[in-house]
Amino acid sequence: MNISVAVSGASGYAGGEVLRLLSTHPEVRIGAITAHSSAGSRLGEVQPHLHSLAGRIIEETNPANLAGHDVVFLALPHGASAEVAAQLPPEVLVIDAGADHRLEDADAWHRFYGSEHAGTWPYGLPELPGARDALRNARRIAVPGCYPTSALLALTPGFAAGLLQPDDVVIVSASGASGAGKALKSHLLGSEMMGGMSPYGVGGSHRHTPEVEQGLGWAAGAPVTVSFTPTLAPMSRGILTTATARVTPGTTAEQLREAWETAYDDEPFVTLLPLGQWPATKSVLGSNFAQLQLAFDEHAGRVVVSCAIDNLTKGTAGGAVQSMNIALGLPEITGLTGSGVAP
Amino acid sequence: MNISVAVSGASGYAGGEVLRLLSTHPEVRIGAITAHSSAGSRLGEVQPHLHSLAGRIIEETNPANLAGHDVVFLALPHGASAEVAAQLPPEVLVIDAGADHRLEDADAWHRFYGSEHAGTWPYGLPELPGARDALRNARRIAVPGCYPTSALLALTPGFAAGLLQPDDVVIVSASGASGAGKALKSHLLGSEMMGGMSPYGVGGSHRHTPEVEQGLGWAAGAPVTVSFTPTLAPMSRGILTTATARVTPGTTAEQLREAWETAYDDEPFVTLLPLGQWPATKSVLGSNFAQLQLAFDEHAGRVVVSCAIDNLTKGTAGGAVQSMNIALGLPEITGLTGSGVAP
Amino acid sequence: MNISVAVSGASGYAGGEVLRLLSTHPEVRIGAITAHSSAGSRLGEVQPHLHSLAGRIIEETNPANLAGHDVVFLALPHGASAEVAAQLPPEVLVIDAGADHRLEDADAWHRFYGSEHAGTWPYGLPELPGARDALRNARRIAVPGCYPTSALLALTPGFAAGLLQPDDVVIVSASGASGAGKALKSHLLGSEMMGGMSPYGVGGSHRHTPEVEQGLGWAAGAPVTVSFTPTLAPMSRGILTTATARVTPGTTAEQLREAWETAYDDEPFVTLLPLGQWPATKSVLGSNFAQLQLAFDEHAGRVVVSCAIDNLTKGTAGGAVQSMNIALGLPEITGLTGSGVAP
Amino acid sequence: MNISVAVSGASGYAGGEVLRLLSTHPEVRIGAITAHSSAGSRLGEVQPHLHSLAGRIIEETNPANLAGHDVVFLALPHGASAEVAAQLPPEVLVIDAGADHRLEDADAWHRFYGSEHAGTWPYGLPELPGARDALRNARRIAVPGCYPTSALLALTPGFAAGLLQPDDVVIVSASGASGAGKALKSHLLGSEMMGGMSPYGVGGSHRHTPEVEQGLGWAAGAPVTVSFTPTLAPMSRGILTTATARVTPGTTAEQLREAWETAYDDEPFVTLLPLGQWPATKSVLGSNFAQLQLAFDEHAGRVVVSCAIDNLTKGTAGGAVQSMNIALGLPEITGLTGSGVAP
Repeated sequence: MNISVAVSGASGYAGGEVLRLLSTHPEVRIGAITAHSSAGSRLGEVQPHLHSLAGRIIEETNPANLAGHDVVFLALPHGASAEVAAQLPPEVLVIDAGADHRLEDADAWHRFYGSEHAGTWPYGLPELPGARDALRNARRIAVPGCYPTSALLALTPGFAAGLLQPDDVVIVSASGASGAGKALKSHLLGSEMMGGMSPYGVGGSHRHTPEVEQGLGWAAGAPVTVSFTPTLAPMSRGILTTATARVTPGTTAEQLREAWETAYDDEPFVTLLPLGQWPATKSVLGSNFAQLQLAFDEHAGRVVVSCAIDNLTKGTAGGAVQSMNIALGLPEITGLTGSGVAP
Repeated sequence: MNISVAVSGASGYAGGEVLRLLSTHPEVRIGAITAHSSAGSRLGEVQPHLHSLAGRIIEETNPANLAGHDVVFLALPHGASAEVAAQLPPEVLVIDAGADHRLEDADAWHRFYGSEHAGTWPYGLPELPGARDALRNARRIAVPGCYPTSALLALTPGFAAGLLQPDDVVIVSASGASGAGKALKSHLLGSEMMGGMSPYGVGGSHRHTPEVEQGLGWAAGAPVTVSFTPTLAPMSRGILTTATARVTPGTTAEQLREAWETAYDDEPFVTLLPLGQWPATKSVLGSNFAQLQLAFDEHAGRVVVSCAIDNLTKGTAGGAVQSMNIALGLPEITGLTGSGVAP
Repeated sequence: MNISVAVSGASGYAGGEVLRLLSTHPEVRIGAITAHSSAGSRLGEVQPHLHSLAGRIIEETNPANLAGHDVVFLALPHGASAEVAAQLPPEVLVIDAGADHRLEDADAWHRFYGSEHAGTWPYGLPELPGARDALRNARRIAVPGCYPTSALLALTPGFAAGLLQPDDVVIVSASGASGAGKALKSHLLGSEMMGGMSPYGVGGSHRHTPEVEQGLGWAAGAPVTVSFTPTLAPMSRGILTTATARVTPGTTAEQLREAWETAYDDEPFVTLLPLGQWPATKSVLGSNFAQLQLAFDEHAGRVVVSCAIDNLTKGTAGGAVQSMNIALGLPEITGLTGSGVAP
Repeated sequence: MNISVAVSGASGYAGGEVLRLLSTHPEVRIGAITAHSSAGSRLGEVQPHLHSLAGRIIEETNPANLAGHDVVFLALPHGASAEVAAQLPPEVLVIDAGADHRLEDADAWHRFYGSEHAGTWPYGLPELPGARDALRNARRIAVPGCYPTSALLALTPGFAAGLLQPDDVVIVSASGASGAGKALKSHLLGSEMMGGMSPYGVGGSHRHTPEVEQGLGWAAGAPVTVSFTPTLAPMSRGILTTATARVTPGTTAEQLREAWETAYDDEPFVTLLPLGQWPATKSVLGSNFAQLQLAFDEHAGRVVVSCAIDNLTKGTAGGAVQSMNIALGLPEITGLTGSGVAP
């Protein structure tokens, strides 16, 4: 209990989830809790599920309030996090749940976000090859997007093993509503969402597309082209990603399974399910776990990988805390061992 | 009100939906209502939403009870419908909501269903090129599967116009729980389904795969290879299909849009939405309408088409009634003009 | 098809439901469709489920645009409807889905709504004793609130038969989110609503409380005191009301059942279910039907009545169209025979 | 980590939740995991959300397999738990999540459960007056029913303070589907449950009625009469209870609030919310917390108390672990500090 942590953006879903996880993290003391429009309120008013922190007062998000902590989590709109981070001392561990420092390619950043590129930070998806080395002792960490987390967990083993063709990946993901945040938009109303599904960002326009291509490119050692379609599902949390790629000629089902088994056998949070069992977002709800399964469709020449995560936990706050643990030299699973909340 | 209709399988979801639509169809008189294990019950016990038919007694499904009607709807497990149909006179219009007579390829039937092929009937998806000619005066009609309905509506215009490549179609669909019927399986319990998503039949094993390939092959004039992944979404009704295919080199966004516009401009039940608006399953809930939108992802070289239908209405019972109307020479939209029930 | 109808408030849920029902009403021609902030848009943009009306342009809500129709539906915020109604000629049938003209007691109006009382119109719940007489040839109709519709259908037979005590009625209702309208409030977001329930307006503060007391008072012939608690349920539509009252001493279960049977045996839209079957909001979804069941809890000395309606249909737009039919001398069920959309 | 625990009924929802909580309980080592029909399976097959226990093999539920543990949790059908418990040594702490040992009144047991009364054990709702004394060092504990937990938390303070009249309590509760367990019944299918609500056990027939009356009677020091109506809501978890009682003449709103404040100010898991904030089941989802709020309806002469719990956590497994902690002399909150999983 000797690491002090500040959390900004505490009134949003990502910030709330960071606080939920940290509230039972045994090595952490929660310091400043900051937000913007709700500054001055009791946390219990805006995050009534955070019982042990209900009486804490939300402070304004600014460098002064965030100062003096060992770790600062930024759960802010893109643009804002880069600005705040620039004012924090280099020895503070800054973990950005936003998009500002995920992309290496300044052009891609500009094309999809329309602003100046703020630079690239170590990428907080520890299960990627080599990622833990970059995170160890890092003082700046970019938390991956929720869709990219699921997509990269799904396909990286195949690309890393050289079994997949990079030119025609197709990914369709279904996300719960919390992925869209707390913005008051009519299509996010309960009346509109309950009982129905719809797509958005179709045709490659979703901002997570370049991030998925970047991450798969790392594994493939070559550019990867992705057709990515996100859809909005009638649930609060969870991402179910269906990711398919053409296999390289001659690849067998056994080779495919072995590649994923090898990649994840020792991973504490990623489970390749036994044959015959399929991922379900409810099985990982509220947890830092990811479930995967794959099938080789020989007829179509494609591997199909299904990956289920909780978009707010493994997809955001859980991945952030996992990366914090690595950066601080704590056991990686500290504070993250909770099971999925099912049914 | 002079066409007499019998409905078998009346205790299931498909049979219930046929009855719901027929109960307000102005040209139809509902005769025998049959089922198996619930025979002898009041319909109101097993289908409490069918208020105007609540007092009707369910009879046993057999040729004698189905005899003497102008039209017989079969909403039975596959295998059963072929058996019953064989005992009905040729002049009766038999509309099979099951799978028995959809596939032309006896080998594909055997591979996916494991039984003897029962022969092929005219395919009840009027929006396919040439389909109405085959349905006019038909006395046997095979109602398409719910997933194939959405997939064929999504991609047929592009194949028919020669703009799509047949060798690498990828389709991911999300379906409401009613698509799985009333079978008492633990993964279909409300506790398990609400708030979560999961895939099934991954890797090309779903029985609708050959039906989608068959239908797209008709449009392409050549074999089409499809990677199809169905997923189960936390809603009672609705299918949201994301269908993508590689475009032929040189194809423009304008050509693509024109192909779909041309195909559907005069269709009463299929709407290509204005640019910027995306399909939503709630917009078609309980209705015979389909909503489509497409985007050309030039970067990935793929067109992505989104299609929303109600799996029980346009995907089953509505398509069946629409086909009945055509076969009987009634105006095609008779009894099917109801809007989606939203929000 | 010779009655011309204008619908104001067409961008909201109540207005949308009026349009949905009218779009298949055989005696009605839909004229002006008006709203405020969405004036100028295609209806299909804001109500994408109303397929047959998608191309219609929304006009501004004002007396000029509403003029020249036989019937005008007002689905406006309270206050606004009284203002618009005052400018419409007396021979036009004006049906107000808002609250302005429901209450007889100007004090109660002032206490719960804080503004000037605009006067009382015939109450559009035809199933109440004597209601049809008041509605026949009426040219102003106040559509009941959705909760009062369910509560009055639940308890009126018992009060009318003198079997219930007026001093201690307790009603708890669960409503779908559409009852709260399209207002952009954070507690109505899908993320917040899906998978959870919460109460609101507890302790008698909900504006429907005096309306329920007024209606039960009509049946009891004496003031009735009601404790009413509304709750918000994770569904888009539907109200499930649990209404209980103390029975008068000596009352038997048979007398109770007979009172409800007598009241509803001839009603086209209200079903007292057979013993052993309980109402379900899904059984009436999208329909004008109400389902009821009652139980006599002798131990507690209370009758418990359960009533399920669709808040937007029987609870608002369906009741409005039913009342219109009566006022215009049409068969009461015209355009309202559609079954519930289940599952 | 030196207390060994066995969990029977591990394939059901209650057993799964016990395991979920114990898997992160710092003082507990999970020994035998037993069930009946799934004995021999990996736990991961039937409870795929319990990641850290996925590889454990389920054993048959019998005294031999349960022997040798410090604590045995029984999550079995009523009847079965009494039978198993009778074969466990007296020094083992046996915690029964079933109904067998909750009721003091053998007649009430017989009337509602139809079998022989198995005797009464200390009641595991620590927040009741005097309950902790009975639980300290207990070796047999009856876990309360989920509805009674919410109802007793709601009304006990008022009865204990003498502010409520015992003759006319009305309680209406909405429960998520998991309260009905994993039984394969058609009305529990996702298709039937999603998007709708229905009541059951109306008229005082639900088995939790005598348990609620018993518990309120303890607080009132006199028999309490309750009209209890449970309803099934479209969510997996959660109970929202609306409980109302007539206040004794002369009681003020301040006295009421003070009674509840006094009762719960020091309780670690029960929160009386600040005025203006209402309970929500999502705020306590997956947690051992209960949220309450009350309102005095002076017009109706009733206090209305709203209480939200998670039926599987505070309503079953969380309450069970909390009681275990007390019985074993551990800090009461050990292993139970997790927040609600929201949104």
